[in-house]
Parts: sequence; structure tokens; C-alpha cells
Amino acid sequence: MTDWTATLADMGQHARRAARELARSSAASRRAGLRAAADAIRADLDAILAANAGDMAGAQALPPAMRDRLRLDAARVAAIADAVVAVAALDDPVGAVIDRRTRPNGLELTRVRVPIGVIGIIYESRPNVTADAAALCVMAGNAAILRGGSEALASNAAIHAAFVRGIEQAGLPADAVQRIAASDRNAVGAMLAAAGAIDLIVPRGGKGLVARVQAEARVPVLAHLDGINHVYVDRAADPAMATALAVNAKMRRTGICGAAETLLIDTGFPDAAAVLAALADAGCALRGDRAAAAIDARVTPADDVDWDTEYLDAILSVRMVDGLDEALAHIARHGSGHTEAIVTNDEAAAERFLAEVDAAIVMHNASTQFADGGEFGMGAEIGIATGRLHARGPVALEGLTTYKWQVRGSGQRRP
Amino acid sequence: MTDWTATLADMGQHARRAARELARSSAASRRAGLRAAADAIRADLDAILAANAGDMAGAQALPPAMRDRLRLDAARVAAIADAVVAVAALDDPVGAVIDRRTRPNGLELTRVRVPIGVIGIIYESRPNVTADAAALCVMAGNAAILRGGSEALASNAAIHAAFVRGIEQAGLPADAVQRIAASDRNAVGAMLAAAGAIDLIVPRGGKGLVARVQAEARVPVLAHLDGINHVYVDRAADPAMATALAVNAKMRRTGICGAAETLLIDTGFPDAAAVLAALADAGCALRGDRAAAAIDARVTPADDVDWDTEYLDAILSVRMVDGLDEALAHIARHGSGHTEAIVTNDEAAAERFLAEVDAAIVMHNASTQFADGGEFGMGAEIGIATGRLHARGPVALEGLTTYKWQVRGSGQRRP
Repeated sequence: MTDWTATLADMGQHARRAARELARSSAASRRAGLRAAADAIRADLDAILAANAGDMAGAQALPPAMRDRLRLDAARVAAIADAVVAVAALDDPVGAVIDRRTRPNGLELTRVRVPIGVIGIIYESRPNVTADAAALCVMAGNAAILRGGSEALASNAAIHAAFVRGIEQAGLPADAVQRIAASDRNAVGAMLAAAGAIDLIVPRGGKGLVARVQAEARVPVLAHLDGINHVYVDRAADPAMATALAVNAKMRRTGICGAAETLLIDTGFPDAAAVLAALADAGCALRGDRAAAAIDARVTPADDVDWDTEYLDAILSVRMVDGLDEALAHIARHGSGHTEAIVTNDEAAAERFLAEVDAAIVMHNASTQFADGGEFGMGAEIGIATGRLHARGPVALEGLTTYKWQVRGSGQRRP
Repeated sequence: MTDWTATLADMGQHARRAARELARSSAASRRAGLRAAADAIRADLDAILAANAGDMAGAQALPPAMRDRLRLDAARVAAIADAVVAVAALDDPVGAVIDRRTRPNGLELTRVRVPIGVIGIIYESRPNVTADAAALCVMAGNAAILRGGSEALASNAAIHAAFVRGIEQAGLPADAVQRIAASDRNAVGAMLAAAGAIDLIVPRGGKGLVARVQAEARVPVLAHLDGINHVYVDRAADPAMATALAVNAKMRRTGICGAAETLLIDTGFPDAAAVLAALADAGCALRGDRAAAAIDARVTPADDVDWDTEYLDAILSVRMVDGLDEALAHIARHGSGHTEAIVTNDEAAAERFLAEVDAAIVMHNASTQFADGGEFGMGAEIGIATGRLHARGPVALEGLTTYKWQVRGSGQRRP
């Protein structure tokens, strides 16, 4: 039996040394390392596909959606390599000056972005996360410790081997990206307990994984558990826009965390019927309160659980509310702090919504499906965080850094 | 027996409501609230001193240093009120725009500072923390739940009562600052477990308290456990500056977390004898390696524990090192990530030190005793953090905020 506590402590030491080296490295050398990693992934196409075929053979009992997530082909492997190259092209966050001030005694204070250190990534079936997460961590100057899903062991091993060979050939430390090459669940427990060795854990996967990580972690966690996102259609909403945004927010892709799960419609909005009809016509099941059911017969009764449910499916809960205050109260009670949107042409109502709703992302006249690091111009994201500390909303390179204070003096003593 | 879990859940709900109200409040109303709180503290001088006399009577077994921390007089109460007024004069962090960008699709993204929510403060004997911490939390738009030391129960109750009366008279919610009015240690355990009710815990006190909080907390913690701060005197240091900074960094006040605990002297620095003599002459006990002992006979042998000890006293460990690399390696191994300083006129050495040392604060030619929110121009501090996430170094109003993303659109759907 592996002693995972000791293994993690050892991996943590190697990671810390690699992180120190990365923190001193130039952006150019990190970019070159990532491009070399992408080249190595492309060069290892056959080995990666063979490994993936093995994983697929062992995964015949999995549901089709999970098998699809696990499956690689030449195009998907090329996309993995391309994504690594894209990260190499992002702005370097390391060394950016956040703040500069000179004190009356002449001390010059500079607040400078630095890497966090060692990031632990715990993820499920998608093998592309192996390369995506590694690339983001390394570009931000961090070492990574990866723990992928058991069903993707061989695929992850092959991608990891290529990635590490690439960065090493480019002169970066091989320990910059380590991988836990076992499906033992105790390894996850040891990662979650590895305070001091791992500075931050990012879980990527389903609710079960995130809930376990949040419950057990002794290490800070950046994650979101739920995306119970609301679209509030105000009385002053443009009817066509309200319909288009409700349909897009729910139906564009129902399985992503930025999808809308509840529609709140102001009783003063005259075109609720058109919005509900468009959703139902688009294939969305509607679960609503009595007032909503009175508007469209396809609305089935919602129960209390619906207001707190992230369907991740073509299902939407619908509630009629008596204006902005009731919408705000509903969101305060049922929202998960992810993404909340108002549709209105009343600027004052919009500004109140943007100011008062407590969520990582608040939107006016836009689809909640824009809740995404790429759409925010971050180039890529390691995840979306709904906690209140460190980083909120889409987390990319900047969220994988911290800062330090540099103080430059000329012999100042404190009186 | 009090059910502290239920009590904290209830306090948390009241705090959350107050936090929502504070988050919507104007800076002017928060400033007015704090000034009214200060007035109420001044008005309650007699009641506060009487309560404190009771605490002092019950604290006769405490060591003199702790009794002094507990003791209030008219001047100290006036200083407490003045400190609250000073916080009311600080720049308002709430609503500050950190970042603004327009996407090619026309979406306008604004990243705006918002309060964190509910802050738990756990502190020891100094009653002034009751008002200091409450003022910082409220000014940053947060609700506070305070838990002071058992020896200061009556003093804290009197200060808290005045503070709350003041803010309430000024129109802020009374629940903005709640207090756990019991010395039961289980109350602390319930605070540390109150994830969801409390967003951030700030422990203020000795190492025992901080260690317990860090070990048990299920809520994010902002703190530092140790301040094992090094002064490295490089071969290119100005001798007079090196002596002055070493003496100031260690001896100005030995009991603060920014005090130096280890002196590293480059073997190539020609004036080590003068530095050590000045420290010994100033009353500092020196514990060093053989090379240091060979320079000054007053240096007694250091053992392995010394390099990891925060003396908080007129004691300094001294090690001769063979240049910058050995100093960096020593600090990487023994530093606690608080404050590290180099003394040198070699700019390249200084820049390497500032870049490579992994600590919240890194200094060149300045005393480590400047590690303080007031000295950094923050006006006040709720503490100094040595963790890597959210805030690092002195934490003041900005560190008590987070941000959210506001997205303003004109009907954009995601393709």
C-alpha cells in the first residue's frame, strides 16, 4: 500500500524546487517550454491514441457522455496541442506591478505579481485537462501536481509524458508538472491534506468531486459547486431581447456551469407568454409556479427543490415575481454566486441589479453563457470560482498568481 | 450548555443581512457611522473604565505584560476612539474599478471591488481590537463577528456596546458588529467551522491562537504564524548602514512580528565585528555559528532550533554565509514568508534578493520593522498575512474586499 502522505510530501518538495526555478524564469523560456510541450504532444500522437484506446476498452460500462469525454482522436490531440500553444501566447502575469507608492520617509513600495507556487489539479474524465491545466500553471510560473480520473489513466500518462519531455527539452524543470499515476482515492485525500506542500487545489469535474474537495480540503480551494444562474426579465425588458437571451442562456449548451437554471419574470412584463413559448418550442421543459403555469400550459408545477437545482439539462424553473425587489430576494436566497443576469431597458433597475446581486458575475442584457474565461478575454481558464476570496469568476493566469511587496530604501530605520 | 453551532448559524444570518445592507451603503454613511461609534466610546469612558477595572481585578494572576495589554485608562480609551475616526478617514475601497475591458462583441466588463461579507475576528487580551477590527470591517462594508479573550470580557462588552449604539444611531445596522459574549472555547470551534456563515477568519493574538485557528478552520483564514525575519548583510553593504539597520530591525521593538530574528552576514563583509558589537552593546543576546563566535566572544553557540525560532525578545541568531546564494538558501529553508531584508550597495544583488526571496515583504536597505500597514500607508491594518492567497503582507481595507465582474451588454447572445 502506498503511503500517500509521504508520497505527497516528497512530490511537494520536488514541486517546490521546480516552482522556485519557474518563478525565476523568463516569460520567453516559459513560452518556449510550452511550445516544446505542444510539439511533443503532436509527435506522440500515435502513443497517445494507443493509450486512449486502452482506456476506452476499459471504459465500456461508462455512460456514452462520459465515453465521449474520454475519447481522443487525431483532431482532439491536435486541439490539445493548439491549446497549449495558445496559453504560451498569453500575457505574462509574473512581474506585473499592481501598485507603486513612495512613502514620506523615502521608502519605495512596489507590489508585484508572483506565482503562487504549487497548484494541485484534481480532475475527471477529460484527458485534455492534463495539458490545459499544466500549461496554465507553468505559464503563470507555478508547479503543478495533477491527479486525473482513473478511467483516463493511460491517456493522461501519455499526454503527461509528452508534456514533460517537451518542457524539459526546452530547459524547464521536469518536476514543474508531476502526476499521480494511480487511481487510489486515498491519493486525493493526501492531496487535500497536503497543506504546506500544495498551495492551492483546483478541482475540475462534477459536483461529487467538487463537494468532496470542498468538504475535506485542508488546502485552499478555487472552485464552484453549483451554477444556479438566474435570468430576471424586468417589466422594462425589450420583449424580443428577453426571448432571445432566455433561450440562449438556457439552451445554447445546457450542460455548462454558465447555463441559466431559473427564469424570473416580472409580473409587469407584458410578453411573458412569448418568452415561455419560445423556450418550450426550443425543447425546454418548464417547471413553474402557478402564475407561470397560467401563462403557458406546458409549464408543469415546480416544487421547492426546483429553485435550488442545477439541472444542467433542457429544464428551466420559472417564477413570476413582483418586480426587482422580489427578484433580488429570490436570487439572494437561491443563487449560488456564479452568474446572474437582468434583462431590462431601465438603466436604474439594471444598475441596482449589478450593484446589489452578490455573485461572481452579474450581467445586464447579456446571456449567462458568456460566463467563461475565453469570453472574458483571458485566453483560457482553469475554472470558475464562486468563493469570495482571492479570485472570483473565471480564473486564468492572473488568478494563478499572488503578489509580494518589494520595499526599496536607502538605510531607513523605523523611529 | 450553549449550542454554539446553532448560535453561530443564527449570528451568521443576522450578519449576512447586515452585510448586504452595508454593501449597499454609501461611504459617507459608513464614515458617519464610525464617527458616531467613536463619539459613543468617548461618551462611555466611565462605563468602559469600570468594566476594565473588573477585568483587571480578575486578572491578577496574569503576567505583567498581559495585564498591561488588558489595562485601559482615559488616554487609551481616547486612543481607541481616535483610531476609529482615523479608519473613517481612509479611502473607501468599495466600488473601486480594478479592471475595465470591452470585448469585440461589445460586452463591457468591469471588475469592481465589493465587500467580502462576514468577517470573524478572534483575538486575545487587547480590548482595543474590539473597536479597531470592527471599524476596519465596517469601513470595508463587511459585517463582523467578534470573539475576544476571556480575560477582557467586560471591557470588550463595554466597548462593543458603545460601538454598536454609535453605528445604530447613525443609521447602520446594529448586526454589523456582533460579539460572542462568552469565554467558552467551544464558541471558537463553532466559528472556525462556520463555513457559509463566516467568509473569512482573522486571528489576532499569540502563536497558540493562530496555530489552533489554522489547524481547525473550515473557513478561510488570513494570518501569519511566525515572523522569522532575516537581515542579510551582503559583502557590498555600507558598514554604518548595516549596523544601524541590524540594530533597528532587532532592537527597536523586539516583540513585534516584523522584528528580525536572524542575522546573516556575508563572510566577504569586512565589518561584521562592528555590527555584532553594536548589537551586543545594545543589549542583544547573540546566538551564532562558530564563524560568528570567532568574531565576537559574546556570541554563544546556536543550536539547530535557533534558526527556526521567533524569539520576540532581545535575542538574535547569527550565521556567517558565503555570499548571496547561501543567504537565499538559508532564507528559503528557515524563513516564514513574512519579511526579509538585504543590506547592500550592489544593486544587482539587491534585485536578485527582491526577486528570488519568497516572502510577503522583501526589503532592500530598510529595517524589517517597517512591516506594518500604517508604515505602508494603509492607515491601519487588521493583520499581516503570510499565506499565498487573497492578500499578502499588511492587510487593511483593500484586503477586506473581494471583487465581482459586472457585464453590460445590449442583448448579446453567445454563438
